[in-house]
Parts: sequence; structure tokens; C-alpha cells
Amino acid sequence: MPFLRFDVIEGWSNVELQKLLDVTHEVLVETLHVPARDRYQVVHQHPRSCVVALDTGLGIERTDKLVMLQLTSRPRERAMKLEFYRLLADRLSSACGIAPNDLVINFVINADEDWSFGMGRAQFITGELH
Amino acid sequence: MPFLRFDVIEGWSNVELQKLLDVTHEVLVETLHVPARDRYQVVHQHPRSCVVALDTGLGIERTDKLVMLQLTSRPRERAMKLEFYRLLADRLSSACGIAPNDLVINFVINADEDWSFGMGRAQFITGELH
Amino acid sequence: MPFLRFDVIEGWSNVELQKLLDVTHEVLVETLHVPARDRYQVVHQHPRSCVVALDTGLGIERTDKLVMLQLTSRPRERAMKLEFYRLLADRLSSACGIAPNDLVINFVINADEDWSFGMGRAQFITGELH
Repeated sequence: MPFLRFDVIEGWSNVELQKLLDVTHEVLVETLHVPARDRYQVVHQHPRSCVVALDTGLGIERTDKLVMLQLTSRPRERAMKLEFYRLLADRLSSACGIAPNDLVINFVINADEDWSFGMGRAQFITGELH
Repeated sequence: MPFLRFDVIEGWSNVELQKLLDVTHEVLVETLHVPARDRYQVVHQHPRSCVVALDTGLGIERTDKLVMLQLTSRPRERAMKLEFYRLLADRLSSACGIAPNDLVINFVINADEDWSFGMGRAQFITGELH
Repeated sequence: MPFLRFDVIEGWSNVELQKLLDVTHEVLVETLHVPARDRYQVVHQHPRSCVVALDTGLGIERTDKLVMLQLTSRPRERAMKLEFYRLLADRLSSACGIAPNDLVINFVINADEDWSFGMGRAQFITGELH
């Protein structure tokens, strides 16, 4: 159920994008323990002039392969989020050639009643999901 | 005041988009009881390769007419949200030919002080709105 | 750390966009007291048909220079948000020629553990930031 919104700078091939989405989902399944088919992702490809990402003084350099990822999710344990950050950086680096310095992530948290996956029903409330 | 962000796959005509936005707003007014002019909507049209939506194992099939809708809103009663999901699926089906299986919705909740509708003022705090 | 997502109607020059982003960041630093390099911004430029913004009955007119801004942030004091709205409207008007009636803003609030600025780490939790 997390809904993932990626913001990247244009210049990615479809193969690279597909790999980014696949690997991110794989890490989501492993660390947040969501079902394999719990996958909702969109990517925005922006002109270079429409993206700014500095480093909050952390000394992290960014390149044009920058990935900014915003996840909307029901509450998750802190340890799971930390493991998601760690493993995603690791896996995107080894599988996609995206450096850990190019990955900026944030979570937005909502509640069970805030989701409908189709058919006009709130599946966490009806008991179809839990 | 809800702010609505739609993510769809490119291929919609302007007439279809307009209808989607109009019908969604109509349902919002009916179920969340917002004023008629309380309307803030943006649509992102994505290449097919930039959208993934599976079904969390619910057995819901998606087509390229998929609509993913994210609403940012002040708190709403659960019953209102459930009615919004139900009626939107119903109305988009009858009025726009969008099948209930192609509608994925989530809410993100914020607070009164989190809104400014213009003029640099927070109208829920100043008392201009309530 | 706030992450800022701007939605505008296409037709902006790169110079105008750059100015919008620069001035908004300047106001963010002044009112929310974020570090100068705490800057994360993306802009979506939409076709006219993909944006609707009315006025919640407030009598505020919109033009095609409309700016809808969504900020995701850790909690901020109410007074800081109000000052951000006020000063941003003021500064965008004087520095960018964007009228206060064309500025719609909302905040989405998350928590320390919801941020990773790179390297797979949650810098507010590790103590690298605070």
C-alpha cells in the first residue's frame, strides 16, 4: 500500500526506470514486509531546471542521477524505515549504479481509513486487507 | 480545501480530463460537504512506463484508464471518506466510463494552520474560513 | 529539510522559475530557520487544462501565474508557518511579480524518522542533524 512518488531529472532510459522501480519494490517487500503485489509507483521526469537538491550541510554531492522518493504509507516501525533507507541505498547502488549520495527519501504517514485500492471500498476497513 | 493530485497514464482528451475533474469535485462537495468553490486540482499525465499499479492481492485488474488520486485535507470523519470512495467509484463509472477497478485513492491529513489560500494569510486561523 | 513541490501552469521561462525557487528558499530560511543548504525543490509545469484553482468563496481571483506549493516538513510552530505565508506572498510579489492572489500553500507534516538525505541514513536519528 505504500504509494511511491519518484522525482528524477530527465535522461533515464525506460530500462533504467524499470530497474529503479523493480529494485525499490523489492526492497520495500523485504524491509516493510508488504505483499508482493502491494505496488503503487509513479515517476516524474523533470527538466534539469525544475529540480534543486542540496545537502543540508551534510557534505553530500548530488549528480543528475538524483532520485527523490516520497512514500505515503500507514504507520511503520522506525526500525523498518531505517532498514528501508539503508537497503535501498545499498541495492540501488549495486543493481542500478545509483550512488547513495543521490538518494533522498521521505515518508508521509496516514491511516487505515485513508486507502481505497479500487471498487470504491476502503479495504483496510472492510477487512479485505489488514 | 482538499488539494487533489491525480496521476493518470497519458492518452486522455481534454474533454475526458475535464469530466474527471468535474465529477470528482461534485462528489467531494456531496460527501465531504466542502463549499462549491473549494476546488484545487492538478493532474499529472505520465508515460505508460512511469506508472505501476498492482492490486495488493485483491484480484483487481487495472487498465490504462487507471486513476490514482491523492487528496490532502484537514481531518474528515471516517464515514465521509468511505462515502467519498464509494460514490466516486460509482459516479466515475456512470459518468466517465472509468471502471471501479481503475480507481486508487489515498488521503493525507493535515491541520487548519497548514493552509493558505492566497494573500499570504492562513484563512482557517484568521477566521475568514472555518 | 522541507521538501517543496510546486505546481504551476506552463509558460514560465527558466529565469522566472529560478527566481521563484530562489526567493521561496530565501523566505524558508528566514521564517522556518532552516540551514541555507537545506533545499529540496521540484516544479511541475502543467498544461492549462490540468490545473483548477478556485477560491473557497474568499473572492480571490487566480491568473495563469498561479503557484500551488506543497511543503512536506517536520513539525513547525504555527507562528512560523503564518510568517512563512505572509512573507512569501510579500516577497514573490515584490521580487517575482507573482500576485498574492496567485499563491496557494499547504503543509504536510511528518517526523524525524521520516527523512533520509542520502547515504542510506536517517540523519535526524543518527544525530548527524537535529
